[in-house]
Amino acid sequence: MTKIVIIGGVAGGASAAARARRLSEDAEIIMLERGPFVSFANCGLPYHIGGDIKERGHLLLQTPESFLARFNVDVRVMNEVLRINRAEKTITVRNLLDQSEYIESYDCLLLSPGAGPVVPPIPGLDNPLTHSLRNIPDMDKIIQTINTNHVDHATVVGGGFIGLEMMEAFHQLGIQTTLLEMADQVMTPVDREMAGFVHAEIKAKGIDLRLSTALQSVEFKPTTSLASMDSGQIEHQHVNGELDLTLSNGDTLTTDILIMAIGVRPETKLASEAGLQIGELGGIYTNEYMQTSDPSIYAVGDAIEEKDFVTGKPTLVPLAGPANRQGRMAADNMLGRSETYQGTQGTAICKIFDLAVASTGKNEKQLKRDGTEYEKVYVHTASHASYYPGAEVVSFKMLFDPKSGKIFGAQAVGKDGIDKRIDVMAVAQRAGMTVDQLQHLELTYAPPYGSAKDVINQAAFVASNLMKGDAVAIHFDEIDHLTDDQLLLDIRNPSELQCGSLPGGINIPVDQLRQRMHELPKDKEIIIYCQVGLRGNVAYRQLVNNGFKARNLIGGYRTYQFATA
Amino acid sequence: MTKIVIIGGVAGGASAAARARRLSEDAEIIMLERGPFVSFANCGLPYHIGGDIKERGHLLLQTPESFLARFNVDVRVMNEVLRINRAEKTITVRNLLDQSEYIESYDCLLLSPGAGPVVPPIPGLDNPLTHSLRNIPDMDKIIQTINTNHVDHATVVGGGFIGLEMMEAFHQLGIQTTLLEMADQVMTPVDREMAGFVHAEIKAKGIDLRLSTALQSVEFKPTTSLASMDSGQIEHQHVNGELDLTLSNGDTLTTDILIMAIGVRPETKLASEAGLQIGELGGIYTNEYMQTSDPSIYAVGDAIEEKDFVTGKPTLVPLAGPANRQGRMAADNMLGRSETYQGTQGTAICKIFDLAVASTGKNEKQLKRDGTEYEKVYVHTASHASYYPGAEVVSFKMLFDPKSGKIFGAQAVGKDGIDKRIDVMAVAQRAGMTVDQLQHLELTYAPPYGSAKDVINQAAFVASNLMKGDAVAIHFDEIDHLTDDQLLLDIRNPSELQCGSLPGGINIPVDQLRQRMHELPKDKEIIIYCQVGLRGNVAYRQLVNNGFKARNLIGGYRTYQFATA
Repeated sequence: MTKIVIIGGVAGGASAAARARRLSEDAEIIMLERGPFVSFANCGLPYHIGGDIKERGHLLLQTPESFLARFNVDVRVMNEVLRINRAEKTITVRNLLDQSEYIESYDCLLLSPGAGPVVPPIPGLDNPLTHSLRNIPDMDKIIQTINTNHVDHATVVGGGFIGLEMMEAFHQLGIQTTLLEMADQVMTPVDREMAGFVHAEIKAKGIDLRLSTALQSVEFKPTTSLASMDSGQIEHQHVNGELDLTLSNGDTLTTDILIMAIGVRPETKLASEAGLQIGELGGIYTNEYMQTSDPSIYAVGDAIEEKDFVTGKPTLVPLAGPANRQGRMAADNMLGRSETYQGTQGTAICKIFDLAVASTGKNEKQLKRDGTEYEKVYVHTASHASYYPGAEVVSFKMLFDPKSGKIFGAQAVGKDGIDKRIDVMAVAQRAGMTVDQLQHLELTYAPPYGSAKDVINQAAFVASNLMKGDAVAIHFDEIDHLTDDQLLLDIRNPSELQCGSLPGGINIPVDQLRQRMHELPKDKEIIIYCQVGLRGNVAYRQLVNNGFKARNLIGGYRTYQFATA
Repeated sequence: MTKIVIIGGVAGGASAAARARRLSEDAEIIMLERGPFVSFANCGLPYHIGGDIKERGHLLLQTPESFLARFNVDVRVMNEVLRINRAEKTITVRNLLDQSEYIESYDCLLLSPGAGPVVPPIPGLDNPLTHSLRNIPDMDKIIQTINTNHVDHATVVGGGFIGLEMMEAFHQLGIQTTLLEMADQVMTPVDREMAGFVHAEIKAKGIDLRLSTALQSVEFKPTTSLASMDSGQIEHQHVNGELDLTLSNGDTLTTDILIMAIGVRPETKLASEAGLQIGELGGIYTNEYMQTSDPSIYAVGDAIEEKDFVTGKPTLVPLAGPANRQGRMAADNMLGRSETYQGTQGTAICKIFDLAVASTGKNEKQLKRDGTEYEKVYVHTASHASYYPGAEVVSFKMLFDPKSGKIFGAQAVGKDGIDKRIDVMAVAQRAGMTVDQLQHLELTYAPPYGSAKDVINQAAFVASNLMKGDAVAIHFDEIDHLTDDQLLLDIRNPSELQCGSLPGGINIPVDQLRQRMHELPKDKEIIIYCQVGLRGNVAYRQLVNNGFKARNLIGGYRTYQFATA
């Protein structure tokens, strides 16, 4: 009889417990959780605050009782593990309800402690109106502050998933919101120019978005309600007030609630104190069997370093999908199987008002940092047949190896069909497909759902054209550095120019180009652009086949335009 | 200078013309179309009739003029090719406007004539109220009949894509509609039990659905409007009236408009008269370069036989996606490149009221017919996190090789996220992934879009359990044939039983099973079922790990229930 002890009762831990029981009826399974809840929907927390998920109870997917009944798992909430005694194969546990301590032995131990919010050393952060959001008690505190502090203005620090979701939650509640982000973009999984679409959406909703701006200090100014002083129950009274924020650019801001969401850090205290190997990125080291440096101790989820699917190097990916699958796999291996984790692509998606933004694999920033040679394409095309109602533009970026066609990564943003396109890319990348092979993908098509040549097919055509030399690219970030040997040619229709255009270009609509080609010089490189790059390719082929030198702006004016948004 | 002549100006032909021009500025490109329109959105026709697409003009994607301006293609509508003179490398063309005939030479000829509606030999079909729907003039005639014949009741024959879309169009127009289908299911790309969900939806919308029912004869009963007789303009008057239909079961039906949509047949007249090889299924034979048996003549689209991606055998797939990509590829090869078509999976999707139904690869009927050994799984799970509003059940079926895990096909039906799941499967299948590898797919997850363990991951877990012997399946079609050595165990909660249950079972809720296991016999095989199969697996594992013999109904009661709908 194997005795399995699991530390942490949410995604990875709960998956492991359930799987372990399905594999073995006689294993003893104990799951320890220092918080009051197990298996709660942590991804749903911002949506309950914002009111999309009405019932708090819907976030509680399992209870200790339900886990016991269905899986015969001994779930102990409010039980914090203080240390791992590897030599004895035991752990020391404190029951947080009565502060008693006890020893529990294990045959296999699974660490699934998650990751905690990074709290930067900003003066004044420790005040009752500043919160982070990791679990149900955090959520409850935020809701309490909203309900008791007459919150007219909220400030969110950090433009990652949680920060963006909290920004939207506040906006839905009718609260004026400021979003501070130290970098020059939100949603770091995508590149700056793709984040531009998100910035535009955020600003359009009336959010006070401040990029390249850090929070420098916080001053808490409490107000005291006379009514509650009169009641003599000061100790039960929530401390109300406001916060004066000073920003890195010297600006100041007064706000009623502050959410810190600048990132998370793996919980490695138990592991490192037990002498388990910590990886170079600060997560618990695991091998492909989800084993730590101690073969009796496994670890999964946000606390660990895992293998990056694309680079093979260690990576930290605090996402629910990998955590769940790793938990299942750790249970397999603890019970004598031999399942290996295949690496993480980091596939992710975030809803930002009406937009979705998603990505898989590596982004351009990472490829540049690694010195990897890459090429990229952009397409902006309809989420389904444009003649059928409800089509929205999918803005899509694909990164690949220009020699082999290997897929490095993909990013997409838009109001419809974003999850689908990134899922397609995530599968294609994991399967080892090349961009050339993506041309042949046969995806579902009927007018309400797609196009006969889907976004992905189109991106693959563009990539394949580049690889074969059928097209020569110029990218949006080169447009501001044209030389005297280059001539900028706008081939859009005159009616389109009012949406904006690149400075210094001449305009010949594509459908007139064949007749007016003589107006162009043969000794200069013609830099062609249209709105999204498709007609640009038609013009490019015309010009090159007529002996001109040319390049086409991949993704067209739309890519350039949003890159600075 | 290459002279390319293209016969047929819609999906494949138009794609080929545009691609050919992009590759070569000096090729002479002539596109002949016997109808009045090129490059129209034939997939959009039913949606204009039903009113979703308001503007008829939105269906006309290109005109001869726009093709000329952008691609310098000589487009000749109302020009019908009468014959191919292969020895001379010419074609004989009739201008349908003035009935003149002329000869046109070619270096390369592309046949893209499409497929025509099958018109069965049913007495009385040739009447002014009976239509098929292939092109803009057909659509216009249907709209005219609707507008002039006071259509209160419509009958659609055939439950394929066009039949279902026309059924929905009539329903949207407030017209009582009967759908006749000779087979015992609509949407033959999916299997009978998956079509059951569609049948339920169709009936729920008030459609008079008659399966296993053929149309036997039609009698046209004209009525004449006095008002129009008075006007003396009889010759411009549409012939109104009604149709008396006799059905294969002896029933009769009176209807105001009849749509024949029982299928299409490749247009092979020109090809076969020219002595080009016709394949065993009746389509124009092509090799992987899209060449017919005459190397100067290429063919693409609905008229051809192509290679089935899964079986490698010839197949007929009259869908827009393959036609478009084949057209592009034929242009490549006509201009000296060497692109090969990689086979067709038959990925397809259809909207039926609020449902989508989609599939890729082979279905079970085809696998049975071919004598292929296969296994199957069903899952019914939420399109996104069930605690976030708007989640809908995705009912998913996957067919695979139980030995190698090779993916044979997948089918899905539901109100949300159907296109995405079948796209994922289409990519995975094309990439040669196994069901085992699908467990590791890392798909986009945030509560509005998916689940940490997506539908596809879950189906892969079930498939993998079967392959490893961690689960033993029983399928819905075996449930009605249990023996005395088997005991049916319903492990749902009592509150669920009111939705219906299998006859003859006993009920022990899964969460009581560990305590009540002694109530079950060890000498019988316990046939476990729950609503969708998930808890059934938990119960299965409990029983088997405690020494019972058991099987779990894959897909649960829901699969059984809809199989007969």
